[in-house]
Amino acid sequence: MTPESRIYTAALIVIGDEILSGRTHDKNIAQVATWLQVQGIRLKEVRVVADETPAIVEAVNALRTRHDYLFTTGGIGPTHDDITVDAIAEALGVAVVIHPEAREILSAYYESRGGGLTEARLRMARVPEGASLIPNRYTGAPGIKWGNIHIMAGVPSITSGMLEALTGTLEGGAPLLSETIGCWVGESEVAALLGQTEKDHPGSQIGSYPFWRDGRTGANFVVRAVEPELLAACVAALVAGLAAAGKEAVPGGI
Amino acid sequence: MTPESRIYTAALIVIGDEILSGRTHDKNIAQVATWLQVQGIRLKEVRVVADETPAIVEAVNALRTRHDYLFTTGGIGPTHDDITVDAIAEALGVAVVIHPEAREILSAYYESRGGGLTEARLRMARVPEGASLIPNRYTGAPGIKWGNIHIMAGVPSITSGMLEALTGTLEGGAPLLSETIGCWVGESEVAALLGQTEKDHPGSQIGSYPFWRDGRTGANFVVRAVEPELLAACVAALVAGLAAAGKEAVPGGI
Repeated sequence: MTPESRIYTAALIVIGDEILSGRTHDKNIAQVATWLQVQGIRLKEVRVVADETPAIVEAVNALRTRHDYLFTTGGIGPTHDDITVDAIAEALGVAVVIHPEAREILSAYYESRGGGLTEARLRMARVPEGASLIPNRYTGAPGIKWGNIHIMAGVPSITSGMLEALTGTLEGGAPLLSETIGCWVGESEVAALLGQTEKDHPGSQIGSYPFWRDGRTGANFVVRAVEPELLAACVAALVAGLAAAGKEAVPGGI
Repeated sequence: MTPESRIYTAALIVIGDEILSGRTHDKNIAQVATWLQVQGIRLKEVRVVADETPAIVEAVNALRTRHDYLFTTGGIGPTHDDITVDAIAEALGVAVVIHPEAREILSAYYESRGGGLTEARLRMARVPEGASLIPNRYTGAPGIKWGNIHIMAGVPSITSGMLEALTGTLEGGAPLLSETIGCWVGESEVAALLGQTEKDHPGSQIGSYPFWRDGRTGANFVVRAVEPELLAACVAALVAGLAAAGKEAVPGGI
């Protein structure tokens, strides 16, 4: 298997009661998913769990060995409800320690803003033993990398900065390419065409996403493949098939 | 335990490659979460899985016995990538059958719109044996109820209609009440206050959600409790504590 043909996979654990209560609309799933695509890593599973140690421990241990990479968002701040580091350390069977570099970063950050490094703020320097840091250029408190686990903030703008810091550092494979075709057609009218086109192009996938807009029925078809030639051939076959059914394909989707 | 004090829990499985690829931003987690709150049911876990039978089977079997209710969204349309019904039937060890009432509904729907009930459209009448239907007033294709499992559409507006149809039909407990207080304060400055206030009010939870806006640091504190009196007492203590620290609480959050 060439490095390009190896498929790298990842899982994401979103930690937070605020997502499960509906109070906060999660933005990290889409953000991490999109970022992973560019790294050539496929997000295969997401779990959203409560701020409860057993739930976090179970999810971490279920997912960290199953995928090349595991990401978590949420629960690494200074307050009592931030239990991610302790829960992950428990899952890994290691101690929680103060990371000296994290302490320095936080100390410098809070000295310059007044107040210094209080006990609460020092909580954000705690890591599972053996961890390294993921830079956070927004608020001082770093993310944490332990083995294949990447522990990130829950606030989407900060998560984004941590992803940026990780860009290019993870080994990935060839990204899954995709192309979207829109069509003003009910997906049930072209279901056979979609299935047959996918079957005719082994290695491709066609996803069908219907919508109803202004009283009209349409669908976007997302064609995915690793090889650009296969992607192009599958898209061309689908466009031709739609045309044969008297339906115009809209490149890029509707 | 009185009916009010029994805690009802639910899990949600979001089925769809489009969410895992980052192409589509999920809206169903927040929608289902918010709806469940009103029903007095707590969403305890969400899993987002790919359009792959083993992934769906595993998630269904892991979650259906662990919670009072299981919900799924996505993968119940007419196309080849809609495999939810087959996967759930496999998880349950039952056959897939055509539901006569679903066939009638779909037949009437597509007769009135032309084209009639094609093979692809008939796929949407397939259910795990023993299921009943969840009405869908938007597009004809019904949702499916099997035991404690509720199989719903992935398109958020249609999911919404199915939730509406289910409103009031599920047994729930007392809803978890919540009240939000905003404050222009770094959460690390009041971390001790938050932890102590929660500890002083057993049964309450305080979530701390920091933000950075226009160069200022703030946080919203979400206090949750089942009993209104406990909620009010915990909120009052937190407001008083913030005031003692020279910080003004903003009711409803910032």
